[in-house]
Amino acid sequence: MPENAVFFLPDEIEVTIPAGQTLLQAALKAGITLRGACGGKGVCGRCRVQVQSGAVTPAGTGKITPEEVAAGWVLACRTVPEGRVTVYIPEASRLTEHRVLLEEREAGVLAAVEGEAAELDPLFRREVLELSAPTLEDNTDDYGRLTWSLQHGRGVGSIWTGCRVLRDLARLLREADWRVAVDLAAVDGWTEIQGVKPAGRGDGAAYGLAVDIGTTTVAVELVNLENGTVSGRAGTYNRQAAFGDDVISRIVYATEVPGGRAELQQAVIETINGLAGELLQMKDLTPHDVRAVVCAGNTTMIHLFLGLDPAYIRLEPYVPLANVPPAVRAGELGLAVYPEAWVHCLPGVASYVGGDITAGIKVTGVAEADPLTLFLDIGTNGEMVLGNREWLVACACSAGPAFEGSGIACGMRAVAGAIEAVRILPGGFEVVYRTVEDAKPLGICGSGLIDALSSLYQAGVIDRGGRFVRGLDTPRFREGAEGPEFVVAWGNETGHGEDIVLTQADLQNLMRAKAAIFAGFRTLLAAVALEVEMVERVFIAGGFGRFINVRDAVAIGMLPDLPVERYTYVGNSSLTGARMALLSRKVWEETKEIARRVTYVELSVGNRFMEEFVSALFLPHTDMSLFPSLQKGT
Amino acid sequence: MPENAVFFLPDEIEVTIPAGQTLLQAALKAGITLRGACGGKGVCGRCRVQVQSGAVTPAGTGKITPEEVAAGWVLACRTVPEGRVTVYIPEASRLTEHRVLLEEREAGVLAAVEGEAAELDPLFRREVLELSAPTLEDNTDDYGRLTWSLQHGRGVGSIWTGCRVLRDLARLLREADWRVAVDLAAVDGWTEIQGVKPAGRGDGAAYGLAVDIGTTTVAVELVNLENGTVSGRAGTYNRQAAFGDDVISRIVYATEVPGGRAELQQAVIETINGLAGELLQMKDLTPHDVRAVVCAGNTTMIHLFLGLDPAYIRLEPYVPLANVPPAVRAGELGLAVYPEAWVHCLPGVASYVGGDITAGIKVTGVAEADPLTLFLDIGTNGEMVLGNREWLVACACSAGPAFEGSGIACGMRAVAGAIEAVRILPGGFEVVYRTVEDAKPLGICGSGLIDALSSLYQAGVIDRGGRFVRGLDTPRFREGAEGPEFVVAWGNETGHGEDIVLTQADLQNLMRAKAAIFAGFRTLLAAVALEVEMVERVFIAGGFGRFINVRDAVAIGMLPDLPVERYTYVGNSSLTGARMALLSRKVWEETKEIARRVTYVELSVGNRFMEEFVSALFLPHTDMSLFPSLQKGT
Repeated sequence: MPENAVFFLPDEIEVTIPAGQTLLQAALKAGITLRGACGGKGVCGRCRVQVQSGAVTPAGTGKITPEEVAAGWVLACRTVPEGRVTVYIPEASRLTEHRVLLEEREAGVLAAVEGEAAELDPLFRREVLELSAPTLEDNTDDYGRLTWSLQHGRGVGSIWTGCRVLRDLARLLREADWRVAVDLAAVDGWTEIQGVKPAGRGDGAAYGLAVDIGTTTVAVELVNLENGTVSGRAGTYNRQAAFGDDVISRIVYATEVPGGRAELQQAVIETINGLAGELLQMKDLTPHDVRAVVCAGNTTMIHLFLGLDPAYIRLEPYVPLANVPPAVRAGELGLAVYPEAWVHCLPGVASYVGGDITAGIKVTGVAEADPLTLFLDIGTNGEMVLGNREWLVACACSAGPAFEGSGIACGMRAVAGAIEAVRILPGGFEVVYRTVEDAKPLGICGSGLIDALSSLYQAGVIDRGGRFVRGLDTPRFREGAEGPEFVVAWGNETGHGEDIVLTQADLQNLMRAKAAIFAGFRTLLAAVALEVEMVERVFIAGGFGRFINVRDAVAIGMLPDLPVERYTYVGNSSLTGARMALLSRKVWEETKEIARRVTYVELSVGNRFMEEFVSALFLPHTDMSLFPSLQKGT
Repeated sequence: MPENAVFFLPDEIEVTIPAGQTLLQAALKAGITLRGACGGKGVCGRCRVQVQSGAVTPAGTGKITPEEVAAGWVLACRTVPEGRVTVYIPEASRLTEHRVLLEEREAGVLAAVEGEAAELDPLFRREVLELSAPTLEDNTDDYGRLTWSLQHGRGVGSIWTGCRVLRDLARLLREADWRVAVDLAAVDGWTEIQGVKPAGRGDGAAYGLAVDIGTTTVAVELVNLENGTVSGRAGTYNRQAAFGDDVISRIVYATEVPGGRAELQQAVIETINGLAGELLQMKDLTPHDVRAVVCAGNTTMIHLFLGLDPAYIRLEPYVPLANVPPAVRAGELGLAVYPEAWVHCLPGVASYVGGDITAGIKVTGVAEADPLTLFLDIGTNGEMVLGNREWLVACACSAGPAFEGSGIACGMRAVAGAIEAVRILPGGFEVVYRTVEDAKPLGICGSGLIDALSSLYQAGVIDRGGRFVRGLDTPRFREGAEGPEFVVAWGNETGHGEDIVLTQADLQNLMRAKAAIFAGFRTLLAAVALEVEMVERVFIAGGFGRFINVRDAVAIGMLPDLPVERYTYVGNSSLTGARMALLSRKVWEETKEIARRVTYVELSVGNRFMEEFVSALFLPHTDMSLFPSLQKGT
């Protein structure tokens, strides 16, 4: 099979690829993840690279100007090298962020709920047993003695054990003088004995991974299973982002590109392995110390993670292959942890309401409390659940990844340097902002974008439709390469020396995102024939950053006009839910039960959602009576 | 690592072995199983071979005469080659018998019990499901739809499925128009979905193996799991016989010889693979058609089969590693069937009462009936169970393999050519006999040996101690190479042209075997303080042959003096029990429950058994009052 070679600059990495593969695939092989919102269709223009030498076959695209073409710029996803080529990848085309997520200060509500579930009973645990030695009168077999003790003394149910563990059990029990530590892994409805060792011979603690697989970002916690503490937390972009921004483009890639499903699976596995590797290294642990994994994610992410065909998720009647996938051995997936460790995925509800949402419901206690509560997770999709201990309904609207910083020119996740709050001062267009960790600004995260949209509208920079008002007397408003834009931070203030701007396209993305969320809420409310005011609590989860300004979110018409004190931001409740399930079989079972209880409302049935969406494409809304607090004054 | 080469004659097979390995190990590698009653200690003299060229390092042994040593004769188990050697293996040193066991005409009782359990619910089965297609109103996920249907429609409990099966389930269900055949394997307390296929697309039937792993012989049945019929049956010597005749010498070999445990495991796996291969070939099936395996065997055999450490079975307090071993994947064991197929071993009671006995109790219905019943399995060990639906007690006595034809100069299993009945005509020493299949005689099987012992005593050839009476006027009595012997069949009558004889050593082996069995029965009866006459039924299982002559067995004092009509011969009830469990989850569970119910009586505790044994070393017994029917007349 003929091969081509690509030498990447400034990385100075060379890879060879089979004939016909693109520069995007070459970059992935080189470990460089490029941006790519459209899934390789050549329409988003994010993956531009410069061919500095060698021949390529570029497919035509309108996203690159003739001048750029002359300078060697191409879209990596549409360009096939011929022979050996040298390619320069600018920073702007990379998904380079690999910083470790800061410890999130989660809202008090979580601590309370977590406290409730504090009884440590993790999916992998070590039980220390003191068995009585056999005698002529008590001549039970060794394995029977062990399992009896587990079943009658430690509440273990159905047990299975591999022969590997049993082979030398007899000698071990005697050498250990019948005091042993037994490794127990919970599987679906049964327990596996994964090892037996003499008790107290300096076994390291067992660890687990809680993983939140988001469409845009992946977060991993390393959890000590013996005391329930979090040893470390890390997050980064999902490497699948190179194959498309949203779940639909990923499904298309997985379904229509030969080998695409495997590529996507590998991409997310590598993302998780990278994060887990960092965390393990920091604690001087090895992959074999990780003995259980719990993943939460939307239904598509879980399908791709497990290598399950996601095709029917996007086809009417929108049925996933599995909402409650069985536990899988880590080794089968290629996760770099103890190969026999079981990987559990939190159960989902439907194609667009996954285990990440079930996790959030569990974490916030919505399903166990009386007050009517709205749970809202704003990630790449916007999912929401309404209900209480009596009933639960859910829906999903595709909000897009804007609030995760994707699809926004200067968008980023809520990590150090992200502008998380913005104000435009009255009497001019001066901008003040605050960044995460007070670092020099590098971009804008979700909460900053909400603030910015609200401030720009209040300052008269944009109209009710979210379009720039022309002819403003400020250098911050200018014509950029992609049309009009507003400068939030000047290059001399920023961490990378470049201006941080919001473009017209950014604003339109934000308008659609906020409209989808509000329309979803309205449709859900209509489905159960309740009024807005009856919602007693709102929990907001998602990647906005620590400080979502609820007043601003209401002001732009994203959130319903309810008293601010009813709102609580709960951070990454998907990750928290994964950790809680990892640490408690009871929580795991309760999460499963919640998934069974939720009734899914399909928004694509009927016209209601689309009508609501169109009505919500204004600031705050076409129907101002829905926002009484905004009518009273500022 | 230096290697030596051994060229075997007349087979003309050459193998290389690591330095230090013996000719016995070389022969096994060449697929030639040698006899070896002592487990490689160099004391039984069964594995003699002739070195025709090359150098060897023989360890001294008294079993070979100086003349033989001069002619190159050595014991294979004690001889290590140096460089390349040529070795001749005579027929007498081989375990060559590979004939297929005949269909056994089992006693009527079995048919009745089997009929009772006739509800076919095998450990592997295919369920055909007609699922409803999903709609917007019924949008359950595909896997959930499948499992719901199995759990609510087909009585399946806890389910686990590997990702391999799920990966393309969505497309498959739709292409099959929601009519699918689901492969279900029962495991310990849960069910594995092993495959999903469109229904009715010409799947071959699924098969299972029922395996009886005896110390001396192994029998396999190929069973059609869809209709419950037996497609074929085959038996042969257990290749482990090369490592010792009885379970103790096997345990010693497994425990004391480096790598011995693995060698023994491989030997029995190869024995089973050979038999299964024959059966599959006859039916034009492939190993992949075999989807479940149930094995019954004594506790040591099951340990060695699974590779479990058997060391503590023979050490006080005689505790096995596992009486109820977990199910194992066939691939892990190296069984040549579908690699993911589960292999189940019937649960045992104690170190010397294994799953073969539990199987017999289940097959004969002892545990479910009112009459006080004795179940007696005479194989290499003699195991017996006494009881009824209220209680069950069991014991084991090491009878030795004499009744299986091992340890007897002209002994053989009950296959074609085996002398199965013998009479010495009154008024002379003329012998009449009957052989299995009326073939020319090749040896004597268990029932023939019992007859012979009884006849020789009645004809005055032997005394009450089982010793030849000297000076008899018949050419049948003569001095042989190993002392006095009696010719049962002359060379001109036999299939191989050689005389079939019984030696003094044979008679002593038979005396010890019959004494051990009777002593075991007496000790068991004493343990529950019951009288002989209270035993209402006796079931006899084992490898004697089809026609055990109960009168003769009573006459030699092996069986208690009860009316003949209370006795029933039930054949290989271990194999039958394995098949019944393979075909019915209910039987499997009931067999497990029987194993839990049996109380084990350890004969080595106290002096009772040894006293009974010594008293039984006479024909029929020292205490003639125990055999009133013999006192009345002939």
